[in-house]
Amino acid sequence: MESFLKDAKNSAHKVATLTPKDKNRILNDMADALVLNTKRIITQNQKDLDFAKSNGLSSAMLDRLLLDEKRVNSMANSLREIASLKEPVGRVLEGWINEDNLRIEKVSVPIGVVAVIYESRPNVTSDVGALCFKSGNVAILKGGKEAEYSNKIIATILGEVLEANNLPKEIISLLPDSSREGVAKLIKMDKYVDLVVPRGGEELIKYISANSTIPVVKHDKGLCHTYIHSDADYKKAIDISINAKCHRPGVCNAMETLIIDKKIASDILPKLAEAFGVQGTLLKGDSEVNEIVKMELATEADFDTEYLANTLNIKMVDSVDDAIAHIRRFGSAHSEAIVTENYSVAEYFLNQVDAACVYVNASTRFTDGGVFGFGAEVGISTNKLHARGPMGINELTTYKYKIYGDGQIRA
Amino acid sequence: MESFLKDAKNSAHKVATLTPKDKNRILNDMADALVLNTKRIITQNQKDLDFAKSNGLSSAMLDRLLLDEKRVNSMANSLREIASLKEPVGRVLEGWINEDNLRIEKVSVPIGVVAVIYESRPNVTSDVGALCFKSGNVAILKGGKEAEYSNKIIATILGEVLEANNLPKEIISLLPDSSREGVAKLIKMDKYVDLVVPRGGEELIKYISANSTIPVVKHDKGLCHTYIHSDADYKKAIDISINAKCHRPGVCNAMETLIIDKKIASDILPKLAEAFGVQGTLLKGDSEVNEIVKMELATEADFDTEYLANTLNIKMVDSVDDAIAHIRRFGSAHSEAIVTENYSVAEYFLNQVDAACVYVNASTRFTDGGVFGFGAEVGISTNKLHARGPMGINELTTYKYKIYGDGQIRA
Repeated sequence: MESFLKDAKNSAHKVATLTPKDKNRILNDMADALVLNTKRIITQNQKDLDFAKSNGLSSAMLDRLLLDEKRVNSMANSLREIASLKEPVGRVLEGWINEDNLRIEKVSVPIGVVAVIYESRPNVTSDVGALCFKSGNVAILKGGKEAEYSNKIIATILGEVLEANNLPKEIISLLPDSSREGVAKLIKMDKYVDLVVPRGGEELIKYISANSTIPVVKHDKGLCHTYIHSDADYKKAIDISINAKCHRPGVCNAMETLIIDKKIASDILPKLAEAFGVQGTLLKGDSEVNEIVKMELATEADFDTEYLANTLNIKMVDSVDDAIAHIRRFGSAHSEAIVTENYSVAEYFLNQVDAACVYVNASTRFTDGGVFGFGAEVGISTNKLHARGPMGINELTTYKYKIYGDGQIRA
Repeated sequence: MESFLKDAKNSAHKVATLTPKDKNRILNDMADALVLNTKRIITQNQKDLDFAKSNGLSSAMLDRLLLDEKRVNSMANSLREIASLKEPVGRVLEGWINEDNLRIEKVSVPIGVVAVIYESRPNVTSDVGALCFKSGNVAILKGGKEAEYSNKIIATILGEVLEANNLPKEIISLLPDSSREGVAKLIKMDKYVDLVVPRGGEELIKYISANSTIPVVKHDKGLCHTYIHSDADYKKAIDISINAKCHRPGVCNAMETLIIDKKIASDILPKLAEAFGVQGTLLKGDSEVNEIVKMELATEADFDTEYLANTLNIKMVDSVDDAIAHIRRFGSAHSEAIVTENYSVAEYFLNQVDAACVYVNASTRFTDGGVFGFGAEVGISTNKLHARGPMGINELTTYKYKIYGDGQIRA
């Protein structure tokens, strides 16, 4: 493992200093190579499918795992899209001249070696590999056991393209030891790895955060709220609430708790209950909500639960401050929204709520790298530091200062 | 400890949402309070001095510890300067409208709760407390045992000003348990603390990096190089080399190794040796250097040493690529410099060398928050993520996205 990581580290400057043209050409070559090797990919993928079937995996899991001609084409197109993104390296983030007449430029540079740990879908291997490559980083990929053969053939094909371009195949490669022990070793290798991005189950993320000596960018839970203020436009409020909860209940930017201002509760709650009824949403309300519309009683534990299902808590509050206090207590600082036509209340909510994304009059479902305009997404960070919220290729860069002098010495 | 940290966390939103005017007024009040309480401070400082003397601390250490009227005034002035810095919170870092016509703004916000661990000089207590306050963060301070009484009285006085302004004194306070066990507990409290900044000895930094579950911004060693290219202007080369090594040999941005291009070595080495001779610098050269000027032979271990003293390694190379390879192998990615008049070589060096600060024709000694124009400095980060290089108050902020909609839902 250590010699592998050493090789990875040593190839970091090679990918970091490739020209944009070369990177994009290689990414397009990789796309072509995936399509050309569709048969090889499908053959290996079949082994994962057979193994999964013999282990009785659900049909949903099998579908996540499956690669056919269409899906390989879509993986290739995703690489072509990543190639077409704006160059993330070398952006001048700031620049100024200091008192000593030094010209100081703060420019984006690759992070170095990025390890990404993820599960099931094999297309993540090519997507994340390509995102790291585009941003000038070495990618160390650790996929799920269930997609072992698929991930291996995809990484091999990308590696073949790298080698055909006189680049070390370590620039995109799978962690050689993908066991638990392998991961345990990896996350202590701060000498060689600059960033670990765990995507997947809560247990895995917790374990890595607690044990890694390498900086971790987490993609943790999303416990998101929508607060309907007394000056809300009812149509917007209902549309946004339904969308935030029901559009895709299983994702991190879906709403878990709807907060309603007491002043309008008797008016809007029945309308909301009707709209959610159409969606088959299981509603749980606090005692005040239950005085207006009867539903299951929401407990403290409910307010602390990320359902990832079509279930919604409803909480009644006296004021925007109460709403904010509830969000501070239970929110995961992912995405929070207010619906209001009141300018001052909107500004107050935007400034008081500390979350990666704070919305006025829009669904929390918009928290997404693609929707934000970042192109392909590495994930959604619940970290406060380095990257917060949707992570695109720019978030796979850090910065350095370039300082241009003409002989200055410090007095 | 946990209830203290909980209180700290709970007061985070109070300091985060203060107006710039209030923050600056309170910082000026704190400055006045320090001056008004000079006597109290000196009395407590005397206890630290007595204890230090009875423990036989060096006179240099005693001087670092000493607070007199002049030094208290200078601490107060430092707070006034911090008050006068440009507001770090609420800067719009980026802003755009996405395809859904959502107006997205990326704005700077406080990090939350910042713990800073440092040694000796008691003025760090007021400086770092004020920097955190200005940037809207709660500061948890852990100073050295040797300055215990001094730190306590300074924190108490700042806390009195906070309370006089109806703010919880937890906004700037000392870690209640400042023992090793206290620190060990603190760095596992990721639930309450958002960032740990260790300043001080290598051992401490290593221990915290290895054991913290909270993100750490390190202020690690500086093993800095200056490369004199064959197209260097000799006067600039010699002035910059002398300044980088001898101006303050004990600091992290001082040069440890001078790299000289073979083409000009026989010409410039004797001149350099003479100039360093005047400065009393102990020179250690590789075998090729020794063929031109006799000096102590530099070993591999020497090239890997941060001397923090007036000692310099000299290495001869065949090319800019050799120089870069040496820097990659031994450098600490802190500050690296090239001296050259050649445009292409300068650009190549700037782009190939990955360090917080890369210089052309200037001394590495300029790596400093004050010199960069950041005002007071939190430190110099050797992290790759979050903050890299000089850290000012802007580096004590993170960001969030504010999203302004008019009823958008995701399709």
